[in-house]
Amino acid sequence: MSQQKLTIGLFGFGVVGEGIYQVLHELPSLGATVRRICIRDPHKPRNAPAELFTTRADELLNDPEINLIVELIDDAEAAYAIVTRALRSGRHVVSANKALLARHLPELLYLQQEYGGSLLYEAAVCGSIPILRNLEEYYDNDLLQGISGIVNGSTNYILTQQAKGLDYDAALRQAQQLGFAESNPTLDVEGHDAANKLSLLLAHAWGIVVQPHNLLRQGITRIRPEDWDYAREKGWRIVLAATALRNADGSVSASVLPRFVAPGNPLFDVRDEYNGLLLRSRLSDRQFLSGKGAGRFPTASAVVSDISARSYQYKYEYKKLRRSETAQLAPDFELEVYVGFDADNPVPESDFGEVYSSYRSEEGAYFTGRISARALLAAAWWQAPGVSVIALPEGAPASRRPAPVRKAALALAV
Amino acid sequence: MSQQKLTIGLFGFGVVGEGIYQVLHELPSLGATVRRICIRDPHKPRNAPAELFTTRADELLNDPEINLIVELIDDAEAAYAIVTRALRSGRHVVSANKALLARHLPELLYLQQEYGGSLLYEAAVCGSIPILRNLEEYYDNDLLQGISGIVNGSTNYILTQQAKGLDYDAALRQAQQLGFAESNPTLDVEGHDAANKLSLLLAHAWGIVVQPHNLLRQGITRIRPEDWDYAREKGWRIVLAATALRNADGSVSASVLPRFVAPGNPLFDVRDEYNGLLLRSRLSDRQFLSGKGAGRFPTASAVVSDISARSYQYKYEYKKLRRSETAQLAPDFELEVYVGFDADNPVPESDFGEVYSSYRSEEGAYFTGRISARALLAAAWWQAPGVSVIALPEGAPASRRPAPVRKAALALAV
Repeated sequence: MSQQKLTIGLFGFGVVGEGIYQVLHELPSLGATVRRICIRDPHKPRNAPAELFTTRADELLNDPEINLIVELIDDAEAAYAIVTRALRSGRHVVSANKALLARHLPELLYLQQEYGGSLLYEAAVCGSIPILRNLEEYYDNDLLQGISGIVNGSTNYILTQQAKGLDYDAALRQAQQLGFAESNPTLDVEGHDAANKLSLLLAHAWGIVVQPHNLLRQGITRIRPEDWDYAREKGWRIVLAATALRNADGSVSASVLPRFVAPGNPLFDVRDEYNGLLLRSRLSDRQFLSGKGAGRFPTASAVVSDISARSYQYKYEYKKLRRSETAQLAPDFELEVYVGFDADNPVPESDFGEVYSSYRSEEGAYFTGRISARALLAAAWWQAPGVSVIALPEGAPASRRPAPVRKAALALAV
Repeated sequence: MSQQKLTIGLFGFGVVGEGIYQVLHELPSLGATVRRICIRDPHKPRNAPAELFTTRADELLNDPEINLIVELIDDAEAAYAIVTRALRSGRHVVSANKALLARHLPELLYLQQEYGGSLLYEAAVCGSIPILRNLEEYYDNDLLQGISGIVNGSTNYILTQQAKGLDYDAALRQAQQLGFAESNPTLDVEGHDAANKLSLLLAHAWGIVVQPHNLLRQGITRIRPEDWDYAREKGWRIVLAATALRNADGSVSASVLPRFVAPGNPLFDVRDEYNGLLLRSRLSDRQFLSGKGAGRFPTASAVVSDISARSYQYKYEYKKLRRSETAQLAPDFELEVYVGFDADNPVPESDFGEVYSSYRSEEGAYFTGRISARALLAAAWWQAPGVSVIALPEGAPASRRPAPVRKAALALAV
């Protein structure tokens, strides 16, 4: 495959956009030049020649010279309009907008197929870690058994500070001051961003297309100081993990949940804004990838790699979606969890398939045990304030108990 | 790119070959079938239909139906004959034979170019970790600053046991009993295997083609009990690291050396037969990949991924080799090392550019300091028995000293 010259229309000139512009200048071997840049505010001073800039999207989308649209704007709705218009004109697109991608994946798949343009978005999941391309190209057989990882840098930064003793509010403020969390952190701390990424991982790992709001999800806002005490006693950390495990029947169990991790698990050492992914496959056993998951340069790194890949006509083949037998999400599956609560929020033992341990005192209480996803979602306490749900490390108390019914579903160590 | 049916001629039916045969049977989605298997010993019982087997290579190499040769035999010379003949007939080849690949890379590049067949060999470096494909596809720009890693599972297993207190001979025996080391371990313990892999990494990372025997190399056989005491005192481990660092002038410094690693460095936690690679690039900062580096299943995993990639017409583009300006190996570079020796093997202080610390007692002595690769190779003690050379962790004593002249060359944390 020979290298093709790319003429880029760039949407957005924030920290990432400006970084990309500079890198493309410094790396002529990429064979890509920025022809026009669409911005919202024409009055802001910019580190690039004034004639490149416009506020009119049409000047990029109707320019016949531009063969690649790079979309790096914050606004998911505006990004949706740009990306779909570009794809409808048969252009190739690079985007890092995971919310847009996860929510509109079916339409974006259709537009690529119908109009022949390709859409690359490595930067949307785990920033600089090349996970989507590896799922497409390297783990493209049926041997992949599970993925579990830290896919959101903001929450991992907050949880890292909390592990050191800071309370949630102070940790969040610190993350915001350092630019690791948004002023409105809801998307991150409630796990929506992680669910978006899990949804993209499911598509590339097993060909499963699912709306992120349909995934079992809990963020980090309900983790209580008592839960941190519990973790510290055991020598564990708490991480926010996106997890997808292939079951024996071929279905896949998926969740975004806080999880206890013990030392020895590579995720234990993924700190601050870093992301990390554990993969398990039948032949290669456990693999681990880590790197910076968010921020100007890691995002720029992934976008530059997408641009370079596109110059060699790379596209996602979505091989697993095109198989005659694609995997399905498991309608129900077993979880091993810790549930923390206080006297005002009683959690009935009967909701659990099995209780491993229970603790009650005047200050509060917890259960550890096995519960089905269905029972968890139906439980009145699942969304109740003052109740925390944290997945247990593999084998932690269960290893001292009879094996749960569907142990196979839990084979991936987290 | 649509999937192409592959008809495979398989050379070798050892543990990996048999594993591949079974996996291809179980995964019809790969679209690959084994048509003939060439073996050396026709009398051994085999877990496959007898009519598949032959001892005559020609029956595979002359079969017009066979469009992919998968070469999995031990003997590097026989493998060389098979692979070059297959490439000369324009066939595609998958191989895991790093010695063959590293030694004959220029010819293998030429044969691919001249006859149009492609050669894939992900299994040759770090077993199940998809490093070559990522260097080709993802880190394919000029931003890659360094690679450093544990690329040999046998020595890492031995060093892991030594860190626990076993002596070298006992650790080696244990590795041999578990199948992690060969009965003749020379290729592994003297660092030749790591040098072969480093040579392949250099080709895919920066387009540098170098014979492995031209790389600065020291194995693990000369590490002394006193060196382990030194490591334990500091809380460090010793690993055998293959390292390549891009210097400010664009040249690359490459070495295979034992290295001290401190906690916090992800390589510190790569134990037993696992391999791990740290990558540093200008935008994505530090990335880390780890997984099983050797053994039946990890090798089979990588070979199956190569077969699958080939079914989608994947080939290494060797993009960096084809650039007008390719990187060169640095003719000389600075190293920060610990040199341990006893009274019978005096190491003169004057060989060092700078001595950070020196220790002498009746039992033995060591220096830590900065030395040029050229001075190291020329030193009488470099190959002397009883003298160990172990690279220092980044910044370990140097951080308490004036910065060395070419600090940029040492920017990759190991």
